[in-house]
Amino acid sequence: MNVSKVISTISEKTKNGITEVYLVACGGSLVDMYPSKYFLESEAKKIVTGLYTANEFIHARPKRLNKDSVVIVCSHGGNTPESVGAAKTAKEQGAHTIGLTHNKEADLLKYSDFPFLYEWGADSDVKNNPMAIILELSVEILKNAEGYDHYEAFHNGMGKINGIIEEGKKLVAPRAKVFADKYRAEELFYILTSGASYGHAYGFAICSLMEMQWLNAAPIHSGEYFHGPFEVTDKETPFILMMNEGRTRALDERALSFLQKYAEKVEVVDAKELGISTIADEVVEFFNPVLFYSILCVYREALADVRNHPLETRRYMGKVAY
Amino acid sequence: MNVSKVISTISEKTKNGITEVYLVACGGSLVDMYPSKYFLESEAKKIVTGLYTANEFIHARPKRLNKDSVVIVCSHGGNTPESVGAAKTAKEQGAHTIGLTHNKEADLLKYSDFPFLYEWGADSDVKNNPMAIILELSVEILKNAEGYDHYEAFHNGMGKINGIIEEGKKLVAPRAKVFADKYRAEELFYILTSGASYGHAYGFAICSLMEMQWLNAAPIHSGEYFHGPFEVTDKETPFILMMNEGRTRALDERALSFLQKYAEKVEVVDAKELGISTIADEVVEFFNPVLFYSILCVYREALADVRNHPLETRRYMGKVAY
Repeated sequence: MNVSKVISTISEKTKNGITEVYLVACGGSLVDMYPSKYFLESEAKKIVTGLYTANEFIHARPKRLNKDSVVIVCSHGGNTPESVGAAKTAKEQGAHTIGLTHNKEADLLKYSDFPFLYEWGADSDVKNNPMAIILELSVEILKNAEGYDHYEAFHNGMGKINGIIEEGKKLVAPRAKVFADKYRAEELFYILTSGASYGHAYGFAICSLMEMQWLNAAPIHSGEYFHGPFEVTDKETPFILMMNEGRTRALDERALSFLQKYAEKVEVVDAKELGISTIADEVVEFFNPVLFYSILCVYREALADVRNHPLETRRYMGKVAY
Repeated sequence: MNVSKVISTISEKTKNGITEVYLVACGGSLVDMYPSKYFLESEAKKIVTGLYTANEFIHARPKRLNKDSVVIVCSHGGNTPESVGAAKTAKEQGAHTIGLTHNKEADLLKYSDFPFLYEWGADSDVKNNPMAIILELSVEILKNAEGYDHYEAFHNGMGKINGIIEEGKKLVAPRAKVFADKYRAEELFYILTSGASYGHAYGFAICSLMEMQWLNAAPIHSGEYFHGPFEVTDKETPFILMMNEGRTRALDERALSFLQKYAEKVEVVDAKELGISTIADEVVEFFNPVLFYSILCVYREALADVRNHPLETRRYMGKVAY
């Protein structure tokens, strides 16, 4: 589907334009929506946004949801009952639904007014992956509803990010191996970052480490670190810090200074060093998480290798009833 | 200050009524704002809300912030630089600021159009603590801006919650001792819950366990648990599940069923069992976190006792430069 055409089609069906964007999914798919939540909360003057884990959206539906709302639902396999249920809930309220999935037989498609069958896998251009598509949808909605000054800069950035990632992956490959060897016996990691990337600190913790490696993990917002979490810092506890380029970089730099002083097991992934700064200042921050996801995939693969724990190993997911 | 008078005074100064409520703080004070974010996102049809850690609010200020916005800032000591800075930022944009603190000499008061000096300590009625005051402010703003059907039920609930808590604390005191004895040597806890209480799962993790006990911890949303995090579940890993009364209870019950089957170290704190259901159905869910905070304080005190690690012990906070 064409993003611009989808949004203009929806907009024409509304009374006064699109008024809300609800981002609804579970786990890894919800993670992919966080940059859009951050983007809209930062840039919008009229459009309202909400980020929901699907089952909470169903059980505690926001009263604001209406016929001029867009509900974006994403499910990789497309049959996650809560996500399918959330799209159904949205349609029952007369909202417009956009469904993203990698499965052309997905149940989600039954409740998706506008379906996106996205590409997946190491060979796909990230601009065709769900995180980028959802971000593009959000940018398009903002432009359509109230205008967006940096629309062109955003699309220029979208044209550049895959190339930046390809170079970055090469650069970090040897580092990821060193990281994996060094931390192969660790049982817990804290993941720090800020801004648009915070969802990916959460995602690396819950998907890459907890789900795929059965390791303990937690995200920490770089700004929140100094208001409680930093008390666990010592020379034994491992931290991964994703340093953003853009407005919240100062928060990540402050966390770095502290970690350099009081921690010893610190892995830094710096978007600036990885070359993201060729994207325009006004929009670069929204691309950090797109970069971090792909770069951290290199780290998790290296870790899975040395731990002899393949990324697809599960004990409960899809194996037992829940 | 009188909540109703403050909100009507602000409202009279706006062009078309209050349009946004920004909830801005750090750490434990931010935690106390989550129920208000949940309430407004659930109940409002016009009012927009945003929850920000203070330094991100300063560095990545939402463009929507304007003269008809209310920015609520809370800082217990009242001199947290990021929180004071956030209130300053809000005033520079012409927004109306409400500042909550326990310190009558607080720098925060310099940038607070409407200050609330709140009560604190085990003897204070929870309705005079910041979580309840911020919730009351949010309810008042909703009523003022667009009406709120359950205003009276909410205030009835506010009149009941302190008594429910007092009874609940007695009930859990012996359980908390058993819990503390059983888990005294654990180094990590996962805290599960949903709905309005999710902020307090985060808060118990980052403040009560990480900051005050130097223990590893992470919050998990009961709805998200099944989409990654549950893969770490085993008979060795401790989970604390706060079960809400209200619309999201089904999510917590699902987590409970799974934990009962695959985990062994599970502590359940059930708001329903603790007597919260005397509060009206339409509003009861918003009071769960008020109850959980006080009840979990009994647990953390018991844990601090057996671990010989007083709750006020710090190694960095207020002791080193950061």
